[in-house]
Amino acid sequence: MSREAAIKALADCRERIDAIDRRLLALLNERTRVVEEIGRIKRECKMPIYEPKREEDVLRNVSEHNGGPMAVDAARRIFERIIDEMRTLQKLKMEATGDGEVE
Amino acid sequence: MSREAAIKALADCRERIDAIDRRLLALLNERTRVVEEIGRIKRECKMPIYEPKREEDVLRNVSEHNGGPMAVDAARRIFERIIDEMRTLQKLKMEATGDGEVE
Repeated sequence: MSREAAIKALADCRERIDAIDRRLLALLNERTRVVEEIGRIKRECKMPIYEPKREEDVLRNVSEHNGGPMAVDAARRIFERIIDEMRTLQKLKMEATGDGEVE
Repeated sequence: MSREAAIKALADCRERIDAIDRRLLALLNERTRVVEEIGRIKRECKMPIYEPKREEDVLRNVSEHNGGPMAVDAARRIFERIIDEMRTLQKLKMEATGDGEVE
């Protein structure tokens, strides 16, 4: 491959990655909305926010459905970060509305 | 909301999250395939794998397109993890095939 062809191919790959990232972002925001809904239900019913068992289920779902080529360990670490960010969000909401207080 | 209705609503939310996660996973694997393609082109043309400028562009794309409700900082931290995992993948491939060696 000539250097010129390589530069063109790389630019094309980067456009594809940017488009994938925007779709990832949209899905992450959709996930955030569902997590917020969970938080509202739990606060209303004074249920515990943090459920380690559920986090294990999420990671199991990820491990079981990873078709590759991304390694399972890499997928788990990415989802651990996602879970962690969403837990922080729920904690902040809980503090803002008062522990277990009905909105 | 009764406790029973809450439990049902939470189960429904969790199913939605699991479905979103499977879509996220499919997109992350699609992204991995493009990153692998970039790696192949770069190795063939002996171009540098690590490009901090490009990583900044990826994070800028994320910040600019985050419609919320997820916070921009949270989105950036998630994508920093994604970039980091894919950089590790490229590094491992590079070591496996030899630095700059044509596959």
